[in-house]
Amino acid sequence: MIVILKQNADSAQLIQLENWIRERGLDIHKSEGTNSTILGLVGDTSKIDIDLLGALEIVENVKRVSEPYKNANRKFHPMDTVVDVNGVKIGGGNFAVIAGPCSVESEEQICAIAESVKASGAVMLRGGAFKPRTSPYAFQGMRGEGIELLEKAKANTGLPIVTEIMDASQLPLFENVDVIQVGARNMQNFELLKALGKQSKPILLKRGLSSTIEELLMSAEYIMAGGNENVILCERGIRTFETATTRNTLDLCAIPVLKERSHLPVVIDPSHATGVARLVKPMSIAAAAAGADGLIIEVHNNPEKALCDGKQSLTPEAFDDVMKAVEAVRPFAYKFN
Amino acid sequence: MIVILKQNADSAQLIQLENWIRERGLDIHKSEGTNSTILGLVGDTSKIDIDLLGALEIVENVKRVSEPYKNANRKFHPMDTVVDVNGVKIGGGNFAVIAGPCSVESEEQICAIAESVKASGAVMLRGGAFKPRTSPYAFQGMRGEGIELLEKAKANTGLPIVTEIMDASQLPLFENVDVIQVGARNMQNFELLKALGKQSKPILLKRGLSSTIEELLMSAEYIMAGGNENVILCERGIRTFETATTRNTLDLCAIPVLKERSHLPVVIDPSHATGVARLVKPMSIAAAAAGADGLIIEVHNNPEKALCDGKQSLTPEAFDDVMKAVEAVRPFAYKFN
Amino acid sequence: MIVILKQNADSAQLIQLENWIRERGLDIHKSEGTNSTILGLVGDTSKIDIDLLGALEIVENVKRVSEPYKNANRKFHPMDTVVDVNGVKIGGGNFAVIAGPCSVESEEQICAIAESVKASGAVMLRGGAFKPRTSPYAFQGMRGEGIELLEKAKANTGLPIVTEIMDASQLPLFENVDVIQVGARNMQNFELLKALGKQSKPILLKRGLSSTIEELLMSAEYIMAGGNENVILCERGIRTFETATTRNTLDLCAIPVLKERSHLPVVIDPSHATGVARLVKPMSIAAAAAGADGLIIEVHNNPEKALCDGKQSLTPEAFDDVMKAVEAVRPFAYKFN
Amino acid sequence: MIVILKQNADSAQLIQLENWIRERGLDIHKSEGTNSTILGLVGDTSKIDIDLLGALEIVENVKRVSEPYKNANRKFHPMDTVVDVNGVKIGGGNFAVIAGPCSVESEEQICAIAESVKASGAVMLRGGAFKPRTSPYAFQGMRGEGIELLEKAKANTGLPIVTEIMDASQLPLFENVDVIQVGARNMQNFELLKALGKQSKPILLKRGLSSTIEELLMSAEYIMAGGNENVILCERGIRTFETATTRNTLDLCAIPVLKERSHLPVVIDPSHATGVARLVKPMSIAAAAAGADGLIIEVHNNPEKALCDGKQSLTPEAFDDVMKAVEAVRPFAYKFN
Repeated sequence: MIVILKQNADSAQLIQLENWIRERGLDIHKSEGTNSTILGLVGDTSKIDIDLLGALEIVENVKRVSEPYKNANRKFHPMDTVVDVNGVKIGGGNFAVIAGPCSVESEEQICAIAESVKASGAVMLRGGAFKPRTSPYAFQGMRGEGIELLEKAKANTGLPIVTEIMDASQLPLFENVDVIQVGARNMQNFELLKALGKQSKPILLKRGLSSTIEELLMSAEYIMAGGNENVILCERGIRTFETATTRNTLDLCAIPVLKERSHLPVVIDPSHATGVARLVKPMSIAAAAAGADGLIIEVHNNPEKALCDGKQSLTPEAFDDVMKAVEAVRPFAYKFN
Repeated sequence: MIVILKQNADSAQLIQLENWIRERGLDIHKSEGTNSTILGLVGDTSKIDIDLLGALEIVENVKRVSEPYKNANRKFHPMDTVVDVNGVKIGGGNFAVIAGPCSVESEEQICAIAESVKASGAVMLRGGAFKPRTSPYAFQGMRGEGIELLEKAKANTGLPIVTEIMDASQLPLFENVDVIQVGARNMQNFELLKALGKQSKPILLKRGLSSTIEELLMSAEYIMAGGNENVILCERGIRTFETATTRNTLDLCAIPVLKERSHLPVVIDPSHATGVARLVKPMSIAAAAAGADGLIIEVHNNPEKALCDGKQSLTPEAFDDVMKAVEAVRPFAYKFN
Repeated sequence: MIVILKQNADSAQLIQLENWIRERGLDIHKSEGTNSTILGLVGDTSKIDIDLLGALEIVENVKRVSEPYKNANRKFHPMDTVVDVNGVKIGGGNFAVIAGPCSVESEEQICAIAESVKASGAVMLRGGAFKPRTSPYAFQGMRGEGIELLEKAKANTGLPIVTEIMDASQLPLFENVDVIQVGARNMQNFELLKALGKQSKPILLKRGLSSTIEELLMSAEYIMAGGNENVILCERGIRTFETATTRNTLDLCAIPVLKERSHLPVVIDPSHATGVARLVKPMSIAAAAAGADGLIIEVHNNPEKALCDGKQSLTPEAFDDVMKAVEAVRPFAYKFN
Repeated sequence: MIVILKQNADSAQLIQLENWIRERGLDIHKSEGTNSTILGLVGDTSKIDIDLLGALEIVENVKRVSEPYKNANRKFHPMDTVVDVNGVKIGGGNFAVIAGPCSVESEEQICAIAESVKASGAVMLRGGAFKPRTSPYAFQGMRGEGIELLEKAKANTGLPIVTEIMDASQLPLFENVDVIQVGARNMQNFELLKALGKQSKPILLKRGLSSTIEELLMSAEYIMAGGNENVILCERGIRTFETATTRNTLDLCAIPVLKERSHLPVVIDPSHATGVARLVKPMSIAAAAAGADGLIIEVHNNPEKALCDGKQSLTPEAFDDVMKAVEAVRPFAYKFN
């Protein structure tokens, strides 16, 4: 961390600042120029509040040289993390596809989809029970009942289940859930992240619509700081000026950037990123090719009852076609390290 | 709402769709062209799930003509809402300035600032007890104890208090709080919004960093749909590509746009929007001139102990100067209606 | 195109509007509801000025159903365009890699790089002679002399050359250039586009930093409307809030979206999109996998004289490694149609 | 400028780098830590190419402490620049309103509007002769003939005229134009900027849709580096994710930020920023209150022939109303220094 002091910084304040820094276990390397003095802070600066430093009257500017996250940082944990979900591994060369409907609607629906996606090669089942919806008048999900139906599908197929939590108070309902998903809108719901850090189930953490890669890693850090190291990162499109056809802009470069900076597995959600079923296939192939550790894809089984399916969902046949294409491209994917 | 059908739409599916629409109490005006058929939906479309319609196989596109919010909509509530906070009014011509520190730090601090901002003309006291911080290692606020200190400052000065909630489970601690703030990161924490809709305290709802104006109004709608009509909207800067000096981009045009569309009061937070104390004055004057119903401004009282203050906070003297400038410009501000 | 009229639209004005529409060769399908009247315009609406319509007093809103571009539109030209560059084909299943240095610096440099990239499989040589630089004090390129050096490298290797034009007045210098590049900053330099439409050399048109896909296609339309159908589209990253490591956000979903809407070839520039050499490989693989028609990659040959190379440039060895990986993944790439 | 070296930087390369820096007339302050070495560059770093430095193998990161622009920088020119346009002053306390139609359409039109806006207090006349349009099929302006009509309106009213140039080759037609406007799409048309720097007419430089404040100042620097110091900066809205009602997001905070960093006058274009006539008044008042040096506003005179006017244009009566409101608020505007 570099602290650039103002010209003519008051020397009493400077001494006070230097003491404050040293009290936090850091060394100082001072460079005095004609126009400005620069302090280089050496040591573990991840616990320094950069805003506090920047607010000091004698400080012109503060710049980080190292990252503000530690548990999620590859520098301190060079080996890939492999998350084990009831025997299904993800990360460290283990590629996993999670598939299922946007919303759980009925036992028949979720069980049929579970069978179908398993047959195509999916290794986990997703399905929304608690649904974050922009409008209070839109369908809010089957909630607890939806989780029970997911459990039935899991009993039938053996597929671990992944479903979204919206509030820490819902945790008791997630006892038999295998991976707890934190949605994009809750990526900085810090009270929820803290609660999830205190339990041990793996977390699928989705990047917020306008969250930077560093903010995503800081949210993972919240969970990991509580003791839960099983975090799967998920890129699902970011909000940009571009709105033509695609709902968001899928940031596939986040894959190599995240894997460089962190040891955690990275999965891509092409369904939410593109918002359009026919774009899911090219983006799934591209994500696998760019080195993703997995995909999370929306599949519905009931095209004739289309009122209940999102336009970003694939039919089981289309999903099977995507799986074949993804499997074919994987041996030629980019590899880290 | 306009539904544009695909060329060669299946007629059986079309009949099914028309029935589905009519069952929801809507009329249909159909226009058949050589290349496409268009359905105009007439009636209360606020409860139609636009994604469901768009997902139909025979539908090319759906476009809203009217807004998806109702309680927050000025069309159905032409008069300005005036929120009454323990006798302090905001909205409908009542201009209110809320001021106080970023974080509550001590009884001495919060009480001194309260006296000071009251003397300068602030009519409510703000102060953070629960602090949303990007890093788990940054100061998280005094939490319940902070609220108790705010209550003391309120007892001393009579100023109603405004403080942020981060989770519905914290509600019991807010019993003596006058306005509950929902922060930008929680604007789409729908479980929290629902809980706040079921109680009656006024809510200060901050716009998310990358939330559209429509999404802000939909979040207000969540609260209002639960029965709580006392919502104050707050623009606090949006995330854009511009990062030079200013932390976010303050969208002052949101003031007339929000007031056109909604009857709810609109306040501006120039401290968080700009992130720099010296920009608070010009943006406060501009916000008042553009017709805002109020301001929420960070003030600290302890410049020599600057490590605990944000660089966006004003000294009491600087705040007093801003208040004088704002009062001077208000008679010449833009007026709606 | 759908025109939504205001409630109580003046009937004389409506007749005037309908006449104006019919004079432009369009049919009108009118749908009258209780609250609003909707006009559906049927026919070739690409030449209708949507802003003019929207400005009419009686008009509430105008929405396009069809695209405002025609020559670039796949609907009117279903077959892929294959651009022939002196015998090198791109598009329609022909994949082409363009490589070379950011700037032409010397005969020795450009000729050595040309030999090297050719040996690795590149089929065209790029090199900047006119350099758009944010600062007037930065190196502006060798200009005409740089083009002469490119011609020498072309003479030596047979590789067609691609270089950027910054102003129509430079056209005489481009007589022996094979593909004229329009940079991102000039994508909406309409006078330049018009001039390029009146000559016949292929154009590599880069998407502007904040240009939508539709705007990119409209700029292609400018060139094609002048008579030059040989346009190659290039995605090179868009400006978003994310700045960590990557300079821009590479929008790979633009590949399938552009190819759906247009018949023109689409190439990806991973060097400028990421701004970092080590991200070029994963993004090149991903772009090829997503179905791109080609890549344009920066290569320098002189790492020990690094002051003259961008940090996004590959060494010849690194480029060779990228080429092998791209060739390996191509058989498994997404295919359109 | 601060150069952070990689751990274990090669010492021969370091010596080479230090020599390279000193050759450019800069001093070096070196700070050696256990993990990294930092070089502080002292002197005029505006002519250092930051990309070149960052590309060096031994360099981890380069961070600017000072600005890369010099002529436009307030540090080197503390007094406000006052641009004199044929006797009409702007900047340094001189507030100027420029008004007129989007496009020049006829002698009658432009002369009538000129009389009208002059009567309301405008001191310069704007009108588009060369029109940058997204579509090649949209009206491209009256071009040379339009400038002749502007000259007639100037002869009648004495108002200096402001009109947009799209290419340096058009300069001969601008002989009697008083202020040459560079549009947002051409803000980084560097060949055009260079040509405008070599002549002496004042330039109204509009900020690009996705240009940072620093890039705007660098484009001003291009013009000033050529010898033309008469640059007026114009904020006209930036492209963000928000599209509801407003076409762009007006960044009013750019006013104090630009005036802090530069001595050049700053004007606001509320017509293009908002895209909606009824938002022009609140944003004009806010811009004046925030300390702008002027406004540029679209006015049409022919509402019954509305097909030729943009929906962002004011009627003469509405413009008169805006002028009264702006004049009323100006004595209470924020003042710099």
